[in-house]
Amino acid sequence: LARRCRWQGWESRHMSASQAAELIRDGMTVGMSGFTRAGEAKALPLALVEKARREPFSITLMTGASLGNDLDGQMADAHMLARRMPFQVDPVLRRAINAGEVMFMDQHLSETVELLRNHQLSDMDVAVVEASAITADGGIVPTTSVGNSASYAILADKVIIELNLESPAALEGLHDIYIPQMRPSRQPIPVVAPDSRIGTPYIPIDPARIAAIVLTRGKDSPSTCTPPDEDTRRMADHLVELLKQEVTLGRLTPALLPLQAGIGSMANAVMSGLKEGPFEHLTMYSEVLQDSTFDLLDAGKLDFASGSSITVTEERGRTLWKDLERYRDRLILRPQELSNHPGIVRRLGVIAVNTALEFDIYGNVNSTHVCGTRMMNGIGGSGDFARNAQLSVFITKSLAKGGDISSVVPFVSHVDHTEHDVDILVTEHGLADLRGLAPRERAVLVIENCADPRYRPALRAYFEEACRRGGHTPHCLEQALSWHREVEVHGNMRAL
Amino acid sequence: LARRCRWQGWESRHMSASQAAELIRDGMTVGMSGFTRAGEAKALPLALVEKARREPFSITLMTGASLGNDLDGQMADAHMLARRMPFQVDPVLRRAINAGEVMFMDQHLSETVELLRNHQLSDMDVAVVEASAITADGGIVPTTSVGNSASYAILADKVIIELNLESPAALEGLHDIYIPQMRPSRQPIPVVAPDSRIGTPYIPIDPARIAAIVLTRGKDSPSTCTPPDEDTRRMADHLVELLKQEVTLGRLTPALLPLQAGIGSMANAVMSGLKEGPFEHLTMYSEVLQDSTFDLLDAGKLDFASGSSITVTEERGRTLWKDLERYRDRLILRPQELSNHPGIVRRLGVIAVNTALEFDIYGNVNSTHVCGTRMMNGIGGSGDFARNAQLSVFITKSLAKGGDISSVVPFVSHVDHTEHDVDILVTEHGLADLRGLAPRERAVLVIENCADPRYRPALRAYFEEACRRGGHTPHCLEQALSWHREVEVHGNMRAL
Ligand SMILES: CC(C)(COP(=O)(O)OP(=O)(O)OC[C@H]1O[C@@H](n2cnc3c(N)ncnc32)[C@H](O)[C@@H]1OP(=O)(O)O)[C@@H](O)C(=O)NCCC(=O)NCCS
Ligand SMILES: CC(C)(COP(=O)(O)OP(=O)(O)OC[C@H]1O[C@@H](n2cnc3c(N)ncnc32)[C@H](O)[C@@H]1OP(=O)(O)O)[C@@H](O)C(=O)NCCC(=O)NCCS
Repeated sequence: LARRCRWQGWESRHMSASQAAELIRDGMTVGMSGFTRAGEAKALPLALVEKARREPFSITLMTGASLGNDLDGQMADAHMLARRMPFQVDPVLRRAINAGEVMFMDQHLSETVELLRNHQLSDMDVAVVEASAITADGGIVPTTSVGNSASYAILADKVIIELNLESPAALEGLHDIYIPQMRPSRQPIPVVAPDSRIGTPYIPIDPARIAAIVLTRGKDSPSTCTPPDEDTRRMADHLVELLKQEVTLGRLTPALLPLQAGIGSMANAVMSGLKEGPFEHLTMYSEVLQDSTFDLLDAGKLDFASGSSITVTEERGRTLWKDLERYRDRLILRPQELSNHPGIVRRLGVIAVNTALEFDIYGNVNSTHVCGTRMMNGIGGSGDFARNAQLSVFITKSLAKGGDISSVVPFVSHVDHTEHDVDILVTEHGLADLRGLAPRERAVLVIENCADPRYRPALRAYFEEACRRGGHTPHCLEQALSWHREVEVHGNMRAL
Repeated sequence: LARRCRWQGWESRHMSASQAAELIRDGMTVGMSGFTRAGEAKALPLALVEKARREPFSITLMTGASLGNDLDGQMADAHMLARRMPFQVDPVLRRAINAGEVMFMDQHLSETVELLRNHQLSDMDVAVVEASAITADGGIVPTTSVGNSASYAILADKVIIELNLESPAALEGLHDIYIPQMRPSRQPIPVVAPDSRIGTPYIPIDPARIAAIVLTRGKDSPSTCTPPDEDTRRMADHLVELLKQEVTLGRLTPALLPLQAGIGSMANAVMSGLKEGPFEHLTMYSEVLQDSTFDLLDAGKLDFASGSSITVTEERGRTLWKDLERYRDRLILRPQELSNHPGIVRRLGVIAVNTALEFDIYGNVNSTHVCGTRMMNGIGGSGDFARNAQLSVFITKSLAKGGDISSVVPFVSHVDHTEHDVDILVTEHGLADLRGLAPRERAVLVIENCADPRYRPALRAYFEEACRRGGHTPHCLEQALSWHREVEVHGNMRAL
């Protein structure tokens, strides 16, 4: 414990989770650690759930991104979330959001703390941050994610630290905490490569604001990533083929450019596929480091990975957490404002690979809303990367729900990424390279290369009729959303 | 002439426009100067039009943004534009684009040269750049715009310079040319304030690549901005009210933050409105400097303006061009990659004011496509600014076509700016502050504050029915685009 908690004053702040929960009152704005189900505070949320079951209690909850250990679900179930931002992946919370019970703000992950810092969101009352250690000066060493923890801890009135005694001690030294200056005198952020270290390995705060220290033991939830299947392997092959070609054409070197991969099984599988390519000295500048990152590091393909969190499967976790020392000098964890920073992504020229729910024949992408209305998870960091990447790739299986739904449609039912921000579309059937093409040219490639053959005739018919009517981006307005309407009414698009 | 053309070798390259036009062959990719109808090459395009009328001839044409002097129209009319990017405002070209005759790529204005530099667009054969002077080393001093001229001149195989002997000599010294390094070793761009000077006052190129120098005389087209009217004055009032409140709340100082204003009469009028507010020591970090910039400079409200071009009305031009010396130390013209750079816009925290064609009840904005299909102008720089601004404002009159069309709709027919990138919506009726709100909360504000009263009942009915059906972003899919379909079928939305 003395090694974990080096700040002398700590005993005066030591309390139980339920005592600390009393510091959080009804109506408050609370910021919590946690990013892609990694490094969330584990005890406080449960103490708050108990409190909410006893008395009228609800809060505005901000996190880095998604929480693990079913916490978002339990908090939603206890009706204690009045507002929630900027991302989530929980089925119970999702239901409450879609029922209009929780006011959810779906934000670019790089932007939440910028809004908070500029007082464009309500000021933060309490920050709750999981730590693997507390430094002699009261600085917080995060655990498996940085997320928004640094700015939350710096901006909140009070800070509650959950010191997780079971978190790997080797995490210390992995983090690089840097906070951009206040405008109008902000200086350039000096990250010039994935391995740039520009800050401190802990979150510096005035210990006077530490209101409570809670000792915990607990693990992150393992990743629910499923292993590559036939479809994702094909998608990886298409992408590897493209990248090889870019190297041949002299547009990229075999080191490519720093890679980013979105959350989920598809992006993870596609990233793993890079093992097979003729690439070397790869780097990552990403958000979440998944199993594929460590596959590539182990394969000697990847030299360095920068992210905001580490989220791995049970199996990978068994070796990784014991062996962390081995990866030490090849990893950095940054605040998500930095890992996703538009200016840095643009500077580095990241190759971004994110997953779409659906895309349309002109290259617009929907990452968030099923049938235009029901929130799935949120845009997450996909926009931060896609907009500013040198190469912006979106992947999806061409079919969803066993073929009931085509993920290639005439008109996406919600737009998260506009045609301006999408270079390459990939499904198991093939790849559409949209760079330098006008909408009418893109449509042909998207239909013929990416759509499932059973939906191609209907897409072709739509496009042909639309072209007869004319326009830069031809559409048949009365049919544009009819594919999604079919799903609402009949549960599938098969009649099309 | 000797003062304008200080490069000794110039006479060997001196030729007529039609001689120079012979350097451009069928199928080539050509980059031209010109941004918001300022500083375009004036003679070459006409010589190319003649050529196209004589022989089979068409090219891919890239510019900064729109060209003046009816050049885009004449080139479209001569069928010499196979491809065109990244922006245009010409009615004849617009018709050709919408007929599918010209393949138009509508791009974020900051991105075109990035794509070119990375060989993601076809390599540039010839650059045609208007100059006000040529330095002793063969460097090009641009005229009233920088646009993409610097990178085009640096990247093209051959450079044709149009030395405009009538352009104001006082332009020299106004420009600041800086080109980001190639990836992966790009360094931070050191702009930290609108008045940061980080480059050279001319475009440095190897004079060996100067293939022709054509002497011209000719003026930019004057701005077609119309003066403020009752509606735009109201919009300005709403925005001034908001900004005053932000100052009162301590979120902004009376100097605000660097201002950006989009093209067009509305944005110009709203900017002029800032004269009336209690603001001082304002700055601009924008693209096009319109009449309003000089109004604010003259009123002593604005300390400094950075842009990529100057486009003013006939009237303003009469005094401005004679008096340019007076504004000299308060102006910079930059490459559009810099004026619109996502990283710099984010660093400075720009207040962005752009014009929408229409927006929807959830805050999605359409800037480009009439009824989802017909291209108006293009997204221009609006996305570069809106995404990265500290405050992203979109303005539009609540009605178009004399009331036949509501510019506030249930579902925009095309998305250029997603709900994630829009903070404030303004019409003559009022303002909706969407910051920190969930979609259902936004809809109420947008309908009640921004929509024209005659369309409010139909919007309310849509929203209520949609809420009954549920979802994070409730919609009635079968009605979502019916408003635009009404316009296609009946020419108006009045039956709704
Ligand atoms: C798009 C996204 C939901 C895909 O997730 P995934 O786990 O890789 O893919 P899955 O195939 O399991 O799809 C998830 C669900 O969406 C459903 N789905 C997929 N395509 C669909 C479509 N076109 N229409 C309706 N539902 C669809 C799937 O059936 C599945 O539903 P289920 O959970 O009921 O089985 C996920 O990647 C995401 O949330 N992305 C947005 C955020 C982001 O990109 N972040 C990256 C940086 S954080
Ligand atoms: C949106 C935009 C077209 C508005 O232009 P404007 O000159 O300020 O406004 P106007 O009211 O004159 O509108 C232009 C035309 O659009 C039409 N229009 C406006 N709203 C409309 C709507 N909801 N539906 C259909 N047409 C509409 C107007 O009737 C007008 O048509 P006309 O030319 O036939 O008279 C223009 O600002 C633009 O191109 N913006 C996108 C690029 C951009 O934002 N750049 C900023 C940085 S460069």
